[in-house]
Amino acid sequence: MTKTNEAEMSGLLDPDRLFPSDVRCRQLARNLFAAVKDLPIVSPHGHTDPKWFAENKPFENPTDLLVTPDHYLLRMLVSQRIPLEDLGIPTMGSHDNSDPEKVWRLFAEHYYLFRGTPSRMWLDHTFETLFGMTEPLSAQTADSYYATIKGKLKQPDYLPRALFDHFNIETIATTESALDDLAWHDQIAESDWNGRVITTYRPDNVVDPDFEGFQKNIGKFGQLTQCDVASYEGYLQAHRKRRAYFQQRGATATDHGHPSAATADLPPQAASDLYQKIINGEHSAADAEMFRGQMLTEMARMSIDDGLVMQIHPGSHRNHSHDIMARFGRDKGFDIPTQTDYVHALKPLLNAVGQQSNLTIILFTLDETSYARELAPLAGAYPCLKLGPAWWFHDSAEGMMRFRQSTTETAGFYNTVGFNDDTRAFCSIPARHDVARRIDCAYLADQVSRGILRLDEAHEVAWELAYGLAKKAYKL
Amino acid sequence: MTKTNEAEMSGLLDPDRLFPSDVRCRQLARNLFAAVKDLPIVSPHGHTDPKWFAENKPFENPTDLLVTPDHYLLRMLVSQRIPLEDLGIPTMGSHDNSDPEKVWRLFAEHYYLFRGTPSRMWLDHTFETLFGMTEPLSAQTADSYYATIKGKLKQPDYLPRALFDHFNIETIATTESALDDLAWHDQIAESDWNGRVITTYRPDNVVDPDFEGFQKNIGKFGQLTQCDVASYEGYLQAHRKRRAYFQQRGATATDHGHPSAATADLPPQAASDLYQKIINGEHSAADAEMFRGQMLTEMARMSIDDGLVMQIHPGSHRNHSHDIMARFGRDKGFDIPTQTDYVHALKPLLNAVGQQSNLTIILFTLDETSYARELAPLAGAYPCLKLGPAWWFHDSAEGMMRFRQSTTETAGFYNTVGFNDDTRAFCSIPARHDVARRIDCAYLADQVSRGILRLDEAHEVAWELAYGLAKKAYKL
Amino acid sequence: MTKTNEAEMSGLLDPDRLFPSDVRCRQLARNLFAAVKDLPIVSPHGHTDPKWFAENKPFENPTDLLVTPDHYLLRMLVSQRIPLEDLGIPTMGSHDNSDPEKVWRLFAEHYYLFRGTPSRMWLDHTFETLFGMTEPLSAQTADSYYATIKGKLKQPDYLPRALFDHFNIETIATTESALDDLAWHDQIAESDWNGRVITTYRPDNVVDPDFEGFQKNIGKFGQLTQCDVASYEGYLQAHRKRRAYFQQRGATATDHGHPSAATADLPPQAASDLYQKIINGEHSAADAEMFRGQMLTEMARMSIDDGLVMQIHPGSHRNHSHDIMARFGRDKGFDIPTQTDYVHALKPLLNAVGQQSNLTIILFTLDETSYARELAPLAGAYPCLKLGPAWWFHDSAEGMMRFRQSTTETAGFYNTVGFNDDTRAFCSIPARHDVARRIDCAYLADQVSRGILRLDEAHEVAWELAYGLAKKAYKL
Repeated sequence: MTKTNEAEMSGLLDPDRLFPSDVRCRQLARNLFAAVKDLPIVSPHGHTDPKWFAENKPFENPTDLLVTPDHYLLRMLVSQRIPLEDLGIPTMGSHDNSDPEKVWRLFAEHYYLFRGTPSRMWLDHTFETLFGMTEPLSAQTADSYYATIKGKLKQPDYLPRALFDHFNIETIATTESALDDLAWHDQIAESDWNGRVITTYRPDNVVDPDFEGFQKNIGKFGQLTQCDVASYEGYLQAHRKRRAYFQQRGATATDHGHPSAATADLPPQAASDLYQKIINGEHSAADAEMFRGQMLTEMARMSIDDGLVMQIHPGSHRNHSHDIMARFGRDKGFDIPTQTDYVHALKPLLNAVGQQSNLTIILFTLDETSYARELAPLAGAYPCLKLGPAWWFHDSAEGMMRFRQSTTETAGFYNTVGFNDDTRAFCSIPARHDVARRIDCAYLADQVSRGILRLDEAHEVAWELAYGLAKKAYKL
Repeated sequence: MTKTNEAEMSGLLDPDRLFPSDVRCRQLARNLFAAVKDLPIVSPHGHTDPKWFAENKPFENPTDLLVTPDHYLLRMLVSQRIPLEDLGIPTMGSHDNSDPEKVWRLFAEHYYLFRGTPSRMWLDHTFETLFGMTEPLSAQTADSYYATIKGKLKQPDYLPRALFDHFNIETIATTESALDDLAWHDQIAESDWNGRVITTYRPDNVVDPDFEGFQKNIGKFGQLTQCDVASYEGYLQAHRKRRAYFQQRGATATDHGHPSAATADLPPQAASDLYQKIINGEHSAADAEMFRGQMLTEMARMSIDDGLVMQIHPGSHRNHSHDIMARFGRDKGFDIPTQTDYVHALKPLLNAVGQQSNLTIILFTLDETSYARELAPLAGAYPCLKLGPAWWFHDSAEGMMRFRQSTTETAGFYNTVGFNDDTRAFCSIPARHDVARRIDCAYLADQVSRGILRLDEAHEVAWELAYGLAKKAYKL
Repeated sequence: MTKTNEAEMSGLLDPDRLFPSDVRCRQLARNLFAAVKDLPIVSPHGHTDPKWFAENKPFENPTDLLVTPDHYLLRMLVSQRIPLEDLGIPTMGSHDNSDPEKVWRLFAEHYYLFRGTPSRMWLDHTFETLFGMTEPLSAQTADSYYATIKGKLKQPDYLPRALFDHFNIETIATTESALDDLAWHDQIAESDWNGRVITTYRPDNVVDPDFEGFQKNIGKFGQLTQCDVASYEGYLQAHRKRRAYFQQRGATATDHGHPSAATADLPPQAASDLYQKIINGEHSAADAEMFRGQMLTEMARMSIDDGLVMQIHPGSHRNHSHDIMARFGRDKGFDIPTQTDYVHALKPLLNAVGQQSNLTIILFTLDETSYARELAPLAGAYPCLKLGPAWWFHDSAEGMMRFRQSTTETAGFYNTVGFNDDTRAFCSIPARHDVARRIDCAYLADQVSRGILRLDEAHEVAWELAYGLAKKAYKL
């Protein structure tokens, strides 16, 4: 009934990968997965570049496509003492003179480091299903991988729009800052291509006083919106206008990546006074935290008015290494999760608007201890709250399984929102949804096997987790 | 050997539910469970109403029996935007005019929300084993469920005492406030019925300065005991008298539901001064916390004298939603767990009385991170400490399994105390013990299968977890 | 294919113990384990007494060898109300007059308490593989156990060096304080025995101002090194000299057991001023914490110079019970883990030296919540960081499995360092490595079974986890 191990691994991918080992359970998982594996991909939160779909130019080479932009890969290689410079990441102000083929070889030689990590599974999925590779990537196969992939990238089938269609993406959301003109989205809309690429309103750079260039950003924000951002009311009005502008480009959601989940609900005068301190640069660290918290509540109020779904992604200690930040800048793999409180942090916002039935707030975490203790109890009570999927470091087989095991018993399935790939690694999108669907089916198979769910229920839930809940929660 | 899945789920309950999927392991679990499933129920901690057993009147209808008093059900339905009013919960000061049959139908239509939650398994157990239902509850079956259950509730077999006997309950403990006259318990004792219903001393409303009506409660406490509660010594003496009163009504334990596990051990004069501040209403939040902590140590000292087992249930952020609290009052599903420290919090109490061999303190938590890190190491060292079972949000299949997996290796089985159903949902009691016994047998089967325990040992331990340890720990 | 359960447990040890229950997975685990089970033991961190190997005298009796020095056993027995005095532990200042045979019998009668704990598995391994016992230890078999073991301990095969060779130990590291003269190591080196017993530099007693006798220790430190420890520079120089002295006795590593993972990187003058406050005893608790943190960074700098691998073992609340500490002293089983932050705590050190490629810092934790949230992300990014294995309370079947499940997906296998037995219980060393190798093979078997790793990769990784990574990380 089950194939021998040798047979299973003759290619790069085991067709039963991530299913339970138990034979009966595995068969249940296979059946559940068969019914959802070909559903369209709904990708309501991610970081692909709309320029790709607007311009539809070929990707350059395997290194630029798969290695250099992927901070999961960079961080692991750096942790094993390979300098960022050798991976094609130039120090700030300097120019990348690296040879992409040489970087690829270095990556291939160290591909064994990724054993047991999701990156390995995502990449193997891309290598096999997209580029037809059958031998594992290694020092020996590095050059043939490079040549094969580079060759294919020149073919029309591998242009961004063709890949989008091939991946069976129904909708993808990108994320743009409050100051973005969304020109690429306009260009996509004006094209004859029908792919649905929508934006997401991400106002961190005009909301977080600690963001680089915050004061300057506020100035631009005023110019862009023709609002008087010298006053708090004008500043809020600027947000309202930008939100409407984003909605016109398809946005159904906002996103907020604060250091913590702290919220506040100040009286109007106090909020206005705080804003004056902030824009005059006279604020303390506590003021900055209070302002970010106040803005979450303001954004929730605006969501009640305009219907945008609110996403809160808190708890990352960004750019933890001074040295890497100083030499290479942001987003080089040195963001580290921190302990994150939700019960006290969200209370001001929830007291203000938590019982509103026309509000949806999707909560994420990098602190798994909050799943069973705080997030599932909160989402299993407040009408406005839903739980985002396992995120970032936890977007992995074990991480997603722990998410279900820790949240389902208190919040159920229907207070969750399906999967987010949350990636700028375009080719990994089908791989990531494949992993998520497999793990959910493995979880459901175990529930059926242990008499917790009937099989017909498991099929219904599998469809919701793979497709239905994301569309509904994000209003797609 | 193992039945097909279809066969298993022909009724509502899979006879192998919650057992491991692996065939050999499952057979071990079946054998272990067969030997404990019919043991009497010992329920040393719960919230059933002694009035039911004193009056022995029929329960009204399915809604009043199964839905409205169950905050697990209310919170899930509210989280999916069904207003409490529609569920038969009136706002404070108003009267419930809801139609119980309509509420039942609303509940039945949304029964799918409970997939994967313990509520679903408890309810299906009740539906099948108590009311003989074989079709799943849904919009289609709502009315026939209602009619069938309502009909049965009129039969003598479904009177509270008959159910108590039918459930094979050997002893049940209810929980009463320090101000309760225990009249229902007296009425039960004076009746010709032999069911053992004992009380538990829960003094939160005269110990916690933040409890609604605390000052007034202290006054009543003095009247009731004829002690001079204007002095700290008189106040302590009032506790001693009430504890004795409760012991005469069968109490073997006290229970303490503080916001944190903080304890204190002040010098007598400082304790007395603190008490004066508290009863004069001149205390800060920190004073209140200190007083609650001081009282835990005082209660432990009284337990050394009178032998009552002490239970500490900390870490719930009660009534988290201002709006729900203001409109509907306490206990409407908005209690949320918080992070809870034990290592530092318990130290004053443990330094004072921790090595006393004639003291038992049973610790509970809503913060699973403390299982392996704090609670198992503490209970695996201090003679007075024992671990209560997985509690509230964690009283579930996964939650109970995590409890065993996280505590056994450090605290063993014999520093735990069996199961607590901790419920006011009377009909769920057999279901909850059934789940607990199944999960413990599944855990033990896995241990036997992996050569950690011999089968004869697993049988001994299964008996202790299902029956022996609870009787011993609670002195029943 | 798989034996019946009865057959498996005919001796004390199941040959398939700790392998997955699933038949196919179990067969994979067997094959992986068969290839690593006989690899030599590398024990880079532990607490055996070098005197044993220097003098090579017989161990006295079963109680002194196996019970009294093992705080895992003492704490469990005390938790079940057996006084330490009855276990042969005298109160401080008094003399142990206990009868070792009587203590052994008491231990044997309570051996059932260890069901489900690693102590039970380690002891059964010792009983069966070292002493040939086949009946379980109990009140009935206590005397025959005692006689048999006592008899064998007199035989030459049971002398410390013979056991060391029999255990197939390639290298063992002991741990000595900065003030130790390492005479036993010299005596071993001068002997004709070839066993490799190296030391580890553990300077807590001259680094931690809260250590008993700290001021006196600093004085001795100065005498021993002929450095002017009245100045900070002289004090640091004393460390450099002692590190060199330890390195000459084989040390490849240092070890630091602080209450927290806090680090600091003060400017030179501030560090020097702090040191003056510390040695003058004019410091606050915060100063002491700051000084310990400053010293971790200084130690890291010295490691860059001399190449010693740095180990940080934080987060134990030592001697939690005042009463036990006052009557019996340190290390009597009352050390309790505490919540431990790494992300903020390590930042000063990491900003100072975190990108140095010639530095290795191995991090341990007693707080499992940090595995996936903090430790794996840190070690999966910083070149200097590696993760030590599951430690102390978590050095158990479930604990080690959780370690792999929580760290591998972010940090991979190659940022971990193999197993540490970390024990003073000499006879448990083979048992502990046996458990670690079994659990790692069980984990890998599951990965192969679920298509995450190919079988050839799993074999490579199994070898690394059992042997290769420890040698490389500790430079052995």
